Amino acid sequence: NKIYKVAVLPGDGIGPEVMAEALKVLDIIADKFALTFDFQHYDVGGIAIDKHNHALPQETLAGCECADAILFGSIGGPKWDSLPLDQRPERAALLKLRSHFDLFCNLRPATIYQGLQHLSPLRSDIAQQQVDMMVVRELTSGIYFGQPKGRELNNDQEVAFDTMRYSKSEITRIAHLAFLAAQKRNKKVTSVDKANVLECSRLWRETVDEVATSYPDVQLEHMYIDNAAMQLIRKPSDFDVILSSNLFGDILSDECAMITGSMGLLASASINQSGFGLFEPAGGSAPDIANLGIANPVAQILSAAMLLRYSLDQNAAADAIEQGVVHALQQGVLTKELVPSDEQHLAKSTSEVGDYIRDYI
Amino acid sequence: NKIYKVAVLPGDGIGPEVMAEALKVLDIIADKFALTFDFQHYDVGGIAIDKHNHALPQETLAGCECADAILFGSIGGPKWDSLPLDQRPERAALLKLRSHFDLFCNLRPATIYQGLQHLSPLRSDIAQQQVDMMVVRELTSGIYFGQPKGRELNNDQEVAFDTMRYSKSEITRIAHLAFLAAQKRNKKVTSVDKANVLECSRLWRETVDEVATSYPDVQLEHMYIDNAAMQLIRKPSDFDVILSSNLFGDILSDECAMITGSMGLLASASINQSGFGLFEPAGGSAPDIANLGIANPVAQILSAAMLLRYSLDQNAAADAIEQGVVHALQQGVLTKELVPSDEQHLAKSTSEVGDYIRDYI
Ligand SMILES: CC(C)[C@H](C(=O)O)[C@@H](O)C(=O)O
Ligand SMILES: CC(C)[C@H](C(=O)O)[C@@H](O)C(=O)O
Repeated sequence: NKIYKVAVLPGDGIGPEVMAEALKVLDIIADKFALTFDFQHYDVGGIAIDKHNHALPQETLAGCECADAILFGSIGGPKWDSLPLDQRPERAALLKLRSHFDLFCNLRPATIYQGLQHLSPLRSDIAQQQVDMMVVRELTSGIYFGQPKGRELNNDQEVAFDTMRYSKSEITRIAHLAFLAAQKRNKKVTSVDKANVLECSRLWRETVDEVATSYPDVQLEHMYIDNAAMQLIRKPSDFDVILSSNLFGDILSDECAMITGSMGLLASASINQSGFGLFEPAGGSAPDIANLGIANPVAQILSAAMLLRYSLDQNAAADAIEQGVVHALQQGVLTKELVPSDEQHLAKSTSEVGDYIRDYI
Repeated sequence: NKIYKVAVLPGDGIGPEVMAEALKVLDIIADKFALTFDFQHYDVGGIAIDKHNHALPQETLAGCECADAILFGSIGGPKWDSLPLDQRPERAALLKLRSHFDLFCNLRPATIYQGLQHLSPLRSDIAQQQVDMMVVRELTSGIYFGQPKGRELNNDQEVAFDTMRYSKSEITRIAHLAFLAAQKRNKKVTSVDKANVLECSRLWRETVDEVATSYPDVQLEHMYIDNAAMQLIRKPSDFDVILSSNLFGDILSDECAMITGSMGLLASASINQSGFGLFEPAGGSAPDIANLGIANPVAQILSAAMLLRYSLDQNAAADAIEQGVVHALQQGVLTKELVPSDEQHLAKSTSEVGDYIRDYI
């Protein structure tokens, strides 16, 4: 019986408390599906800066290296915002982990759950339609990492520059994952670019067209980023898989998340070619509500489900968690922020939601 | 009495028919405010490609050069989409005009009008709040124009690249215009960037902070582009002036437009340091509804108002047009796409809307 090594990086803010609920759920999954997990905890983010002077200490990185997957909480907070950019939690830990492990594929599902349509900021007739999208974002290239990047003096004037760069192979590998994802979903890929302006987007479009020929059962459409930002609001139910570059995917995945109105319910997977990955809630560390027992653990629990599915290939176990979550949502087992103001007394605590999902499983 | 020379570039699709309504309105404005206009018509876009083999013929450019302002319709359509990128209407005409005249400042107002809140795709409680934003977008620099931009072979692999570049003075001049606009509005600027990843955004943020010190009466906030894409949907009434770079402004101004639900009502001004500018509807050329007499002329009419305000400094005349438009909207004088499906028989034609606004003025 294989022992699955999971590096657990709770991080800052609400990270530790929602992580506790995810581990609770994984414990029952271990029992029920006869899986053996070896959880090793490591510091990351602001707490790691405070304790070890680095947002991603050597020990943490080494721990991740010998693990089968990383379960990540969330990092950052005002306390560390004034550090130089390169030392800040987001750059020093998150971007470092992505590039170190070549986690080039970010998967961000965004679903409006039955019964929670009223949470969406969209008009009710739009939110009532079936909204179930998945952003497939390229995560280790593009303008985030392209060189040169810096500043120079030009005739005594300060000038800053960044480079957007994509190779054909980088586009090819992420496009394949988007089409494969679409085959298991509603068989449509919307590839988002700015091909009327950017050379990178022209190569992107050409390459995606080529990859598409291997997936005749999947419908492909191309859309400019400005138009996509609009159409997502007008008719999100038209989208299935949204494929895009690093920067555009950053914008669109957050826009999609907001459209569902429930950031606390959304998970994010960042994986590499061999299936190794980092799994985290889509929302932030929310330091303002940390330690109050009111943070929503669902996104962290769904991150654990994605970890099972994508890194450990345990689809039945992942399904069980997802069903548990859907059941909890349908039964109105919800944390404070999802409960209407006149029913706040019915809100459940972080651990009550975790318990409910565990017990259902 | 000064003669105002206006270069009129109707372009493609619905351009010519909505332009006719704007000119109708400017004629009555000329009478009422004792202004003298000299309108010279020129071909631009697809029609110019068909007639002169270039989307921006020399004669058109020369005509714009000796004008006080450009009133622009809209360009492009499927007929010209397969041309090489550099010859297509958007690049060859629109981007060329922007850079030729150094139209570095794009102003895109986005308002949800009283009585038209139901058109917004946002939830009614959100759309009912007072939504009145203005995107101030840098329009002649950034990744649209930065060099180098192109393709190369790297170890037999195709690689594409674009350069995002901003100088301090480019940021300074657009920031001043954003703060000046905010002083005449609700005294708040939200500057949008991606300073946690991009060097250009760090220079942007620093420079905007410096410019802000000259406007102590205006509140400044910085926001990451991914977060802005979300907050605009969650609470658009929190925004007043949104300041951003070329690419981010492209995305945000279209997102803001969609939030109002009435693209056909929104105008766009692109101006340079001396007040010369190009004024156009925010929507596209809509070739599918061209020549049916159903296109909404309001955006084109409001473009004429912006032309009067920003290039000709005729604020009273601009106010008169804007009041005429508000009156028409309030009286339900609307084209087809704004009318609920069970009241389509009440829809007005393109020229009826133009006549109504003219007569009111
Ligand atoms: C923190 C930041 C660098 C990061 C990104 O832009 O990738 C975040 O927004 C995300 O999407 O995970
Ligand atoms: C046509 C295109 C190049 C243009 C842009 O991106 O600037 C358009 O989207 C706009 O916003 O005017």
